[in-house]
Amino acid sequence: MNDVADSVDRAAFIAALELPARCILSDEAELRPYECDGLSAYRRLPWLVVLPETIEQVQSVLACCHRHRVPVVARGAGTGLSGGALPLANGVLLSLAKFTDIIDIDIHNRLARVQPGVRNLAISEAVAEHGLYYAPDPSSQIACSIGGNVAENAGGVHCLKYGLTVHNIAALKIITMDGELLDIGCHALDSPGYDLLALFTGSEGLLGVIVEVTVRLLPQPDYAQVVLAAFDSVTDAGQAVATLISAGILPAGLEMMDTLAIRAAEDFVHAGYPTDANAILLCELDGTRAEVEAQLDKVITLLNNSGAGEVRQARDEQERLRFWAGRKAAFPAVGRLSPDYYCMDGTIPRQHLGKVLATISAWSDEYGLKVANVFHAGDGNLHPLILYDANTPGELERTEEFGGRILELCIAVGGTITGEHGVGMEKINQMCVQFNSAELQQFHAVKQAFDPDGLLNPGKAIPTLARCAEFGRMHVHHGELPFPELERF
Amino acid sequence: MNDVADSVDRAAFIAALELPARCILSDEAELRPYECDGLSAYRRLPWLVVLPETIEQVQSVLACCHRHRVPVVARGAGTGLSGGALPLANGVLLSLAKFTDIIDIDIHNRLARVQPGVRNLAISEAVAEHGLYYAPDPSSQIACSIGGNVAENAGGVHCLKYGLTVHNIAALKIITMDGELLDIGCHALDSPGYDLLALFTGSEGLLGVIVEVTVRLLPQPDYAQVVLAAFDSVTDAGQAVATLISAGILPAGLEMMDTLAIRAAEDFVHAGYPTDANAILLCELDGTRAEVEAQLDKVITLLNNSGAGEVRQARDEQERLRFWAGRKAAFPAVGRLSPDYYCMDGTIPRQHLGKVLATISAWSDEYGLKVANVFHAGDGNLHPLILYDANTPGELERTEEFGGRILELCIAVGGTITGEHGVGMEKINQMCVQFNSAELQQFHAVKQAFDPDGLLNPGKAIPTLARCAEFGRMHVHHGELPFPELERF
Repeated sequence: MNDVADSVDRAAFIAALELPARCILSDEAELRPYECDGLSAYRRLPWLVVLPETIEQVQSVLACCHRHRVPVVARGAGTGLSGGALPLANGVLLSLAKFTDIIDIDIHNRLARVQPGVRNLAISEAVAEHGLYYAPDPSSQIACSIGGNVAENAGGVHCLKYGLTVHNIAALKIITMDGELLDIGCHALDSPGYDLLALFTGSEGLLGVIVEVTVRLLPQPDYAQVVLAAFDSVTDAGQAVATLISAGILPAGLEMMDTLAIRAAEDFVHAGYPTDANAILLCELDGTRAEVEAQLDKVITLLNNSGAGEVRQARDEQERLRFWAGRKAAFPAVGRLSPDYYCMDGTIPRQHLGKVLATISAWSDEYGLKVANVFHAGDGNLHPLILYDANTPGELERTEEFGGRILELCIAVGGTITGEHGVGMEKINQMCVQFNSAELQQFHAVKQAFDPDGLLNPGKAIPTLARCAEFGRMHVHHGELPFPELERF
Repeated sequence: MNDVADSVDRAAFIAALELPARCILSDEAELRPYECDGLSAYRRLPWLVVLPETIEQVQSVLACCHRHRVPVVARGAGTGLSGGALPLANGVLLSLAKFTDIIDIDIHNRLARVQPGVRNLAISEAVAEHGLYYAPDPSSQIACSIGGNVAENAGGVHCLKYGLTVHNIAALKIITMDGELLDIGCHALDSPGYDLLALFTGSEGLLGVIVEVTVRLLPQPDYAQVVLAAFDSVTDAGQAVATLISAGILPAGLEMMDTLAIRAAEDFVHAGYPTDANAILLCELDGTRAEVEAQLDKVITLLNNSGAGEVRQARDEQERLRFWAGRKAAFPAVGRLSPDYYCMDGTIPRQHLGKVLATISAWSDEYGLKVANVFHAGDGNLHPLILYDANTPGELERTEEFGGRILELCIAVGGTITGEHGVGMEKINQMCVQFNSAELQQFHAVKQAFDPDGLLNPGKAIPTLARCAEFGRMHVHHGELPFPELERF
């Protein structure tokens, strides 16, 4: 981590920023709300918070930081779950919270130009009158901002059918560390030159600061219906997921919850879930009415043949929304069971769902830590929630160790350490397992092409080779990591 | 362009390669077939052709070129239309033609691992028995190779609905200029770290050499149907395209042809096109039968209301295939009208189709060069074919000037200079109009991160700032370029 800001006088630096006083926070009480993002297990007070109001101000803030070699962490709504916006004790926290304008809605080309601080859901609300919406829907969509969505390449329940953030944006305006404004991407299907738009999406604030996003909009589907299926085991439910996808069904969402999650959600929002089930699947279909109904018959038959104890189609729109309310409330519902929980985010090939969940369950006993599972089964994106109590000495450390083993298990079966939450602080050690040193070096070379002094979000997302050596875990190609637990299945 | 190879002795270099003799071509007669790709207006004899047979051989060829500072141009099937595989008189032409194995088909995860020389269509043929296919379908799909498709981010008739190459691949194995093998991408929906997979796709051989591609497969649609609509003018047909898309229809393909193209195709393959129409649209729908039929009614009504003189649904599968045979044969059919033609590839926002086509038509009169239009109307990707005779002195130069003006017009209305063919040699000057110098410098910095000595495909895709200064055309943001012709519409 860069520690040059230690030698910079803060008052002199504030003067050099030439920002209106309302755009600068420097008292400890004002800095406190910025000490963490959604990964609240890690906290650190920033050196300074700036809240610019114009693109020119962002440019001059970055140019000033560049001149003084002060590192910068950009922050959207602070809902990120991997600690990507954790501030630096010796750096500027650059908040985009004042960039909340929807600049332009182009109905003809189905595009909206928005500022980075616009909330994800606010985009869909603004274009609803035209029968359009913005597809990626992270659980935090009420609060999270589109700039943060781009930085993390956010997903959501519907990304199985509609893709991640990268598939739903057309262009960005970004500011580089030396204050240069670049237009990347375009409104056409493809852009000449290197695909900097995709490179930037999911780069976790390490390459530049996003000051405008052009999102693609989709027509709202005519009709949506959801089917709930209950199973005696997560293995059976996992097998049913594989069967549906293999049969060529492309659900709008295909979510799984296990016993603990089902009961927590049911207690919390009374969604109408079967509390005696060991796993449920929610399978949503959308499209024209004819299309949905034809697919529904097929889905219900396949679920019945996959050993589901109960298969229930929502009776009406109210029940459909109730089924989803349970899923969407699952995280806070699980939060009521335990003082703290730690949400993991690995992705695995669908056919390994059963054995990976069984291994996690065995480890849960071993560590004496309960785990609830609520996740995007259709794309194999697991979200094990490890329940712990930060006030019990050693429990956070045990939770982190357990979480790390889960991520390495995901790699071992051919998956990845993150589906949609990003690496941030949280999974940086596991990056040493996911990639070999040539691959990590290539990442560092790309970083160098944007930010040669390493001032943007240092210490996040891409580990140094020295850090990997210290962590001491070897890179493995999938299938090579010895996991004796897997032998049992 | 790098000219260091001039000082390297060819015989000594061949010895240093340590390849079997069958993997090296050095006689002029052997080199001749490699002097151009699909853009045959540009030809140059390579210094040497190598045809490695293993990944290790590709690594050692690149490492050897790196040591001797010999530039390298990689080549797939040589069907590219922008001159991306034009060889260097002082460099190695590295052909991937011997990499033709389909390594693995993973039906469960709908993935196929293939070598870069596998033909696009061969992938769909290999997986057809499982009810799957590979969606991107460039017109050259019988001949073009998947490695080249990735290098150019190839599209095709179906990319409106199914996306470009970048949306249909999961992972790559690439060799960097210093001979390092990197695994990029993964089989999950998203991969941690920077999105090198997307960065690499469409990078036109400037960042590394592709030695393996993992493609995503899709289930074959149950049913497809096509509607042909005839119009009195291209403007009306362009308006109908905008109407269909605005109504929320997502056709599998939406293609337009103008009079010259219609007649040429009809004479050539007897597709059953109305030869008195000034424009036709082909609108294909696919999915389940119920879905297609529901959409068909809507499409036919919308086309009738858009002023189509005739709207005709294919009577049966044979007629559907005949309608498409005409479209697919349009390029060779136009080729029968003229000794040579020059295929352009700009992309524009759909609502400007009418005025851009009218401007091209006015310029056609001005230059005395006929133009046929056959293109992907749904995504605004134009393919004006300028007819000329290379043996008439000055005609190629007039054609190039005309083509350059078309590309600049595309930028002026908010579009781009390439939809799916890449920049290559052909559009390198227009890159100076599309991008400003800060953006071009960022591209060069990214190149530097992969190939600091500039040995991979030098002179293509991204112009130097010096070249742009020489070309003398300024970067413009769309709408700013003075095009008095546009005032008339």
